[in-house]
Amino acid sequence: MKKDTKAHILEMGAQIIHQKGFNATGIQEVLNAAAVPKGSFYFYFKSKEEFGLQLIDYFSNFLFSKMDEFLNADNVAPLDKLRNYFEWFLAYFEQNNFIGGCPIGNLAQEMGDINDAFREKLKSVLDKMKTNVAQCLEEAQQQSDLSPALDVLYLSDFIVSSWQGALLQMKVTKNTASVRNFERIIFNSLLKS
Amino acid sequence: MKKDTKAHILEMGAQIIHQKGFNATGIQEVLNAAAVPKGSFYFYFKSKEEFGLQLIDYFSNFLFSKMDEFLNADNVAPLDKLRNYFEWFLAYFEQNNFIGGCPIGNLAQEMGDINDAFREKLKSVLDKMKTNVAQCLEEAQQQSDLSPALDVLYLSDFIVSSWQGALLQMKVTKNTASVRNFERIIFNSLLKS
Repeated sequence: MKKDTKAHILEMGAQIIHQKGFNATGIQEVLNAAAVPKGSFYFYFKSKEEFGLQLIDYFSNFLFSKMDEFLNADNVAPLDKLRNYFEWFLAYFEQNNFIGGCPIGNLAQEMGDINDAFREKLKSVLDKMKTNVAQCLEEAQQQSDLSPALDVLYLSDFIVSSWQGALLQMKVTKNTASVRNFERIIFNSLLKS
Repeated sequence: MKKDTKAHILEMGAQIIHQKGFNATGIQEVLNAAAVPKGSFYFYFKSKEEFGLQLIDYFSNFLFSKMDEFLNADNVAPLDKLRNYFEWFLAYFEQNNFIGGCPIGNLAQEMGDINDAFREKLKSVLDKMKTNVAQCLEEAQQQSDLSPALDVLYLSDFIVSSWQGALLQMKVTKNTASVRNFERIIFNSLLKS
């Protein structure tokens, strides 16, 4: 039961912070959404910062479970695996009014300059994303679907940058034109070169 | 004198909000930094929101003056003009401990989902950035420095995405590796294809 309460607070907090950001969200708002008293929150999290750090795990667990699902799919060509991963999020945003963007990117933008514990944890999540993308690109090279002349580490870093920036644009355009354009240029031009 | 006070409040507020974000910054903090009383602030800005909207103009005036400076330079090839623009910011961030990132991108990320007035104003700034980049790419096509087969509108949107995402990564890596990688892939691969 205690474990469920903690998971419930994280889930409710994640929804609010994904849309409003960490600093703009008060603990009281999370308590109200989760319908738990303040004492319960501080039983599980010693501070708002500690809660935020655990939220990074919450968000990244979701992202990496999606990456695992798509990048380890059977009988799919490596570049199609990667494209399917991004397509899943594109469809998700189209069904959810283009809000939220990437919670890891949001927190990196918001907290990177002002909190070192957040910054280091977020860096490790972005590093793991890039490693996963690089492995997929390497697999594509092994199957001769991608030029061996391309540097998969540079490419994976660049794919993560351009994905994050496309989601940032989505936040103000309220459409997925930039996200579709990211897919078009990455998959139809850059990875074909 | 009144005009100077207003400009001074905007300048002090811009410095704080560039690093901490809009929601995490209180009016009192801006008043303290500018050394002006509360009444003075509300004489020039009817609300914190109004102040934030005027800050978008403050930030974008700076960005567009830099764009004008580099993109209208005499006797420089169009793609070199664009590269010089990004190089200027790269040097700026290296001299300033990799903090802040793009204030327009930061506000887009932070405010796009929660305030329509901010969202629309930020969208128009990003649109103008993309138009400027597209014009520069068109000039490169006219001078046969860029393939006429490339779509400059798609490319300019993608360049803005990947630039914003590279700056986002800089916030957590505290180096310019992703920004340099953005330059390498855009100028040495994508625009050469």
